[in-house]
Amino acid sequence: MMKKIKLGILGGGEESLIGILHRVAANMFDQYEIVGGVFDSEHSRSVDFGNKLQLDKSRIYRDLDHLVEAEMKLPENERMQVISVLTPNFLHFPMSKQLLENGFHVICEKPLTTTLEEAKTLEKIQQEKGSIFGVTYTYTGYPMVRQMKTMIQNGEIGSIQKVDVQYYQGWINPLIHDKEKRSTTWRLDPEKSGISCCIGDIGTHAFNMAEYVTGLKIQEILADLNYLYEDNPMDIDGTVLLRFSEKTKGVLRASQIATGEENNFTVKIYGDKGGLKWEQENPNYLYLLKEGQALQVLKPGHPYNSEFSLEGTKLPPGHPEGIFDSMGNIYFGIARAIRKEKGFEGAFPKLSEGVRGMNFIEKTVESHKQGNTWVKL
Amino acid sequence: MMKKIKLGILGGGEESLIGILHRVAANMFDQYEIVGGVFDSEHSRSVDFGNKLQLDKSRIYRDLDHLVEAEMKLPENERMQVISVLTPNFLHFPMSKQLLENGFHVICEKPLTTTLEEAKTLEKIQQEKGSIFGVTYTYTGYPMVRQMKTMIQNGEIGSIQKVDVQYYQGWINPLIHDKEKRSTTWRLDPEKSGISCCIGDIGTHAFNMAEYVTGLKIQEILADLNYLYEDNPMDIDGTVLLRFSEKTKGVLRASQIATGEENNFTVKIYGDKGGLKWEQENPNYLYLLKEGQALQVLKPGHPYNSEFSLEGTKLPPGHPEGIFDSMGNIYFGIARAIRKEKGFEGAFPKLSEGVRGMNFIEKTVESHKQGNTWVKL
Amino acid sequence: MMKKIKLGILGGGEESLIGILHRVAANMFDQYEIVGGVFDSEHSRSVDFGNKLQLDKSRIYRDLDHLVEAEMKLPENERMQVISVLTPNFLHFPMSKQLLENGFHVICEKPLTTTLEEAKTLEKIQQEKGSIFGVTYTYTGYPMVRQMKTMIQNGEIGSIQKVDVQYYQGWINPLIHDKEKRSTTWRLDPEKSGISCCIGDIGTHAFNMAEYVTGLKIQEILADLNYLYEDNPMDIDGTVLLRFSEKTKGVLRASQIATGEENNFTVKIYGDKGGLKWEQENPNYLYLLKEGQALQVLKPGHPYNSEFSLEGTKLPPGHPEGIFDSMGNIYFGIARAIRKEKGFEGAFPKLSEGVRGMNFIEKTVESHKQGNTWVKL
Amino acid sequence: MMKKIKLGILGGGEESLIGILHRVAANMFDQYEIVGGVFDSEHSRSVDFGNKLQLDKSRIYRDLDHLVEAEMKLPENERMQVISVLTPNFLHFPMSKQLLENGFHVICEKPLTTTLEEAKTLEKIQQEKGSIFGVTYTYTGYPMVRQMKTMIQNGEIGSIQKVDVQYYQGWINPLIHDKEKRSTTWRLDPEKSGISCCIGDIGTHAFNMAEYVTGLKIQEILADLNYLYEDNPMDIDGTVLLRFSEKTKGVLRASQIATGEENNFTVKIYGDKGGLKWEQENPNYLYLLKEGQALQVLKPGHPYNSEFSLEGTKLPPGHPEGIFDSMGNIYFGIARAIRKEKGFEGAFPKLSEGVRGMNFIEKTVESHKQGNTWVKL
Repeated sequence: MMKKIKLGILGGGEESLIGILHRVAANMFDQYEIVGGVFDSEHSRSVDFGNKLQLDKSRIYRDLDHLVEAEMKLPENERMQVISVLTPNFLHFPMSKQLLENGFHVICEKPLTTTLEEAKTLEKIQQEKGSIFGVTYTYTGYPMVRQMKTMIQNGEIGSIQKVDVQYYQGWINPLIHDKEKRSTTWRLDPEKSGISCCIGDIGTHAFNMAEYVTGLKIQEILADLNYLYEDNPMDIDGTVLLRFSEKTKGVLRASQIATGEENNFTVKIYGDKGGLKWEQENPNYLYLLKEGQALQVLKPGHPYNSEFSLEGTKLPPGHPEGIFDSMGNIYFGIARAIRKEKGFEGAFPKLSEGVRGMNFIEKTVESHKQGNTWVKL
Repeated sequence: MMKKIKLGILGGGEESLIGILHRVAANMFDQYEIVGGVFDSEHSRSVDFGNKLQLDKSRIYRDLDHLVEAEMKLPENERMQVISVLTPNFLHFPMSKQLLENGFHVICEKPLTTTLEEAKTLEKIQQEKGSIFGVTYTYTGYPMVRQMKTMIQNGEIGSIQKVDVQYYQGWINPLIHDKEKRSTTWRLDPEKSGISCCIGDIGTHAFNMAEYVTGLKIQEILADLNYLYEDNPMDIDGTVLLRFSEKTKGVLRASQIATGEENNFTVKIYGDKGGLKWEQENPNYLYLLKEGQALQVLKPGHPYNSEFSLEGTKLPPGHPEGIFDSMGNIYFGIARAIRKEKGFEGAFPKLSEGVRGMNFIEKTVESHKQGNTWVKL
Repeated sequence: MMKKIKLGILGGGEESLIGILHRVAANMFDQYEIVGGVFDSEHSRSVDFGNKLQLDKSRIYRDLDHLVEAEMKLPENERMQVISVLTPNFLHFPMSKQLLENGFHVICEKPLTTTLEEAKTLEKIQQEKGSIFGVTYTYTGYPMVRQMKTMIQNGEIGSIQKVDVQYYQGWINPLIHDKEKRSTTWRLDPEKSGISCCIGDIGTHAFNMAEYVTGLKIQEILADLNYLYEDNPMDIDGTVLLRFSEKTKGVLRASQIATGEENNFTVKIYGDKGGLKWEQENPNYLYLLKEGQALQVLKPGHPYNSEFSLEGTKLPPGHPEGIFDSMGNIYFGIARAIRKEKGFEGAFPKLSEGVRGMNFIEKTVESHKQGNTWVKL
Repeated sequence: MMKKIKLGILGGGEESLIGILHRVAANMFDQYEIVGGVFDSEHSRSVDFGNKLQLDKSRIYRDLDHLVEAEMKLPENERMQVISVLTPNFLHFPMSKQLLENGFHVICEKPLTTTLEEAKTLEKIQQEKGSIFGVTYTYTGYPMVRQMKTMIQNGEIGSIQKVDVQYYQGWINPLIHDKEKRSTTWRLDPEKSGISCCIGDIGTHAFNMAEYVTGLKIQEILADLNYLYEDNPMDIDGTVLLRFSEKTKGVLRASQIATGEENNFTVKIYGDKGGLKWEQENPNYLYLLKEGQALQVLKPGHPYNSEFSLEGTKLPPGHPEGIFDSMGNIYFGIARAIRKEKGFEGAFPKLSEGVRGMNFIEKTVESHKQGNTWVKL
């Protein structure tokens, strides 16, 4: 009989916004058993939280060092197999590195690291160790994103000629115009968040999505960023021209000063045989545009969807899937990989995608700083 | 420290559509620990499924009798506290009854029973025992439904003058026109499903929702049902005129032959100070209509929502909630009640609502059979 | 060479809301020349308005008697051929009658008359005279309503099994709760508006549309109206159960106290092969639902639409049609009929539809007053 | 008494797509009387068309020279006052020039000319003559675009920090991939269409709209265009980075190879106090985003709209306005200007806007050809 995969978690405690997302996702398909972790840098809070989850006290660790040491002493069939890294951005790298080096599989929040250098280091270790490493570009798990990917792969919209991705939020607006606030927000502090705010946090989602659904690689970019204030070291808005090939062009728009926007992430792909459009805030609709035909709206759970899409749909049509489902699908994909089962291609975002994301962030800032010139990825 | 509530499940095994919904919901807020149950009438399948969930084998029971007997022998702090009944409709009553009589709390799928008589019997026992009994009218758990309820309660749209609820599906269309199929579908078999198909299955959701969000009670109804074929004993479509009071009228429309519809459940409430509208297939939008003002679209997670609504929202605005979240909120409400904590009024649908639902079903069929006349509820 | 049709107008002057709608519609396809009329009961205002339209002063008449007398003296090729009646409801009948009796074609706003009796009288005269008589159920002129009609006629959604029409407005809410206002509003005065307000004004649109798009006739109805106050003699809200045949049922909902609603007129038709949905406030989208297929959204101007629909579309896809276009199409249909050209069936609403509308209004009130019983149409 | 303005038309005959748009618009507010013109380069067709409009034969001219000569001989109060130029792009300049030189007011379709040079020439003559000159950037006439302009002007969304305009169509897709077709389409022939296809035809609308609603001027641009094939001399897709000021940035996206798109023109403006969004294909909704508040959807005809917006709304809320209404409003604005009445600022697009549009087109192509560098406007 198949045993659940033993999962540890770093971060994601009481104050965390995303802890619940990962826990629900891990539980969704009955693939994982959360066995312990370090939920908070403050040990007592970590313990309280672990207790709430009813975990064995002995596996609520003081810090990662203690976790690694103790877990390595356990017999292999009791040991944590995979560990989710939900800590602040700057800790993604050292923690993931330590985990990889000790043979754990890793699930890491994005952005993967704070520099491309670090990302490459992780990739090198991972390749040596042969570990599974998932990066939670959450939105790729939605059934209709998977359907879009399959349809493009199957030639449904022909050869891609135009790619348009947008990720608009407004949450930085109330901070950025206040000198005090903008100097104290951790997202705007390069020490904690790397060299980019808007592109690093959300632009990278849009970049990944553009490559994910099209199956194409972006070759070159030209970026124009906005910092709004001279004393603000981090971009909070930007437009990036994308070149996939001589003919296939695109544009990526990201903003955290699109006042009033929540999480307005949209994807539009146009080929010579049709177009496909999707919006994250209304994730259960996939729009198919074909010349001379009525607009088609595809929805999850129908047999006309691909097997890959259907695998990620839990209930019959008309029962809205949400963000939890999307992350649940990604965790499921990782579980299969850990179990060495054959899963769908694209079932979870890989470390290499995280590396490409870091490369994109660095090159975007480079292009902007050079005066908005083309830079090869 | 707070312990998780020990949950047993009846039904919901491998073949079940709704098993995953209840398990995800139970896990969502870290309130429950699934400890065992009877997942399938076929014991070996039940055991396989319990193993998959990594449950203690000794608590995967052959049937409900065994479960009750064994659990009652356990010390109280190890015993199942609450049991979810996800079995076919006609088993809801005997199982719930046995559970109540043995002191368990119960979570039961709707329709509660197959007759009003049975429902009243359950209510009587529950009142004697003082048990918690939740009926999973799932859709009442959505954050924006809760927001609608609070706003109406707070007088935001004034005195209610018009109620309009619709629940349209199309799934029976491909069955009903085929003599063979319509005679073998269990939903169309009164033995298994009670006296009504469409009203019993979905009309009752709409009825409950109309009373839930308005806080009003429907006094009288006049129903017109459609059976389409003389050899079909069960309604598959119907319209019900609703009278809340002399002045406050409404209409409930339900159909399973609205070809092509998925789960198109909508609620519109109009008062003398404004209107509120909500659609289940797009559950994160609540429309507020006020004379002389722009249409307002409220969304989950914003501070302008009520505490009751916000309690059921797990992530920041822009991260779509789905049906899992809705059921998760209901399980959370039940958990609080079991812990004797003070929760929000309306945090989960009560047994009395299930009883009213059964009454509605019977009276609807009665009104129709009498030639579409008014019947008091 | 084809001459424009000479058009006279009664009402529709400076204060009129609908005058501009009729004038724009008449001009749209270059079929009519407005030559004169009686624009206002106050002659000087009528003259001022006629001057503004740059009409020949001699054809701006004091009243209908003068108009008829003077026009009849003109040579036939100069005489007004058709006259649009845009006056208050209670004048529709006497004016239309006088016009028909004198050999004019007539375009009349709805409701056609204030009683069924009057409507039948008009019909009798019209049949004797062989005149063209259009009733402006404006919404039937939209390209996508025409498309819906053609598709149903062609069997696209199979045999109709469910009809659902809604017409919700909120404009009476601010009047009805004020005793003074509700006693002085002309729409609530039976002398001026006939026996019904809500059903007469908008329910009749919904009734006509239900029959128009399905090509079916409603056989029986059962109505429940709402008057809200005892001193209010006119319905302001109502639900009407519709029976097209033993199997084909439907429901019509109309309200003027759906607070905050503007002109929310929707049509849903379900057959055994699919469903079609349309909304007046977003008139350029027609939704086609087919089992096992993606939802289809048809839009005006595409070659996949019927000739009938395309005739009423003036610009390429993506250029929104509005209410003016809808009325323009109806005027065009009437022009063709006047010229004795063969036009599309359903190109304009006929007098017989107006008569059916009046019958519906009377029977609806009758059903309600009898205690919500079935009444044959 | 006010006389109608005498209007002549060049082009817009039987084969024209836009002739009907201009005629309906001219008639809408009863401000113009169409008296003659040159409707087709083939005189007999022109005469036939003029006859259909029932125009005086003597004023259906052989060509512009004849028109000018004959009209100049008429007494001033009978002479055409304003002439609409609806001919192919390359004729806009010579015809407008001749008209201006002879003292006519002009309404000209966009693009104004084929070169910036020509545009400036027109502007010079117009300034000397003091003529009224309207350029039909049609979409600025929609009531909700006007409302957006007023709200921004009134500071409703504060200081603008992000501008995003999109104009996506797909109509060139079926032509561009066919060598034969792409070499014979007039829009892709620089001789007939100037130096740009996509930017010239639709990008210029988006450019104008961005400046129109914000009241700001774009200072610099950086463009990346797509031609897809080496033998195609004209852009068919492009993205243009916009700089309004150091801080206020934006992006303009235009495409004619967004396969399946119809006329998907959208405008999003974000300031430090809120955001506003509008979509041409659904022109009656204006979205207002404010931090911490429900999304607001403004619609035409409500008293909360500005006077400027309300002036362009002909019917009560809930009666959809379409593209005809938008053009009608522009014609009305021009009529007022011709009558020397004080109208609303922005009531019609001026020649200076057409000049800026031509400048934008030339600079966009220049930026692209220079290797995607910043160019000052």
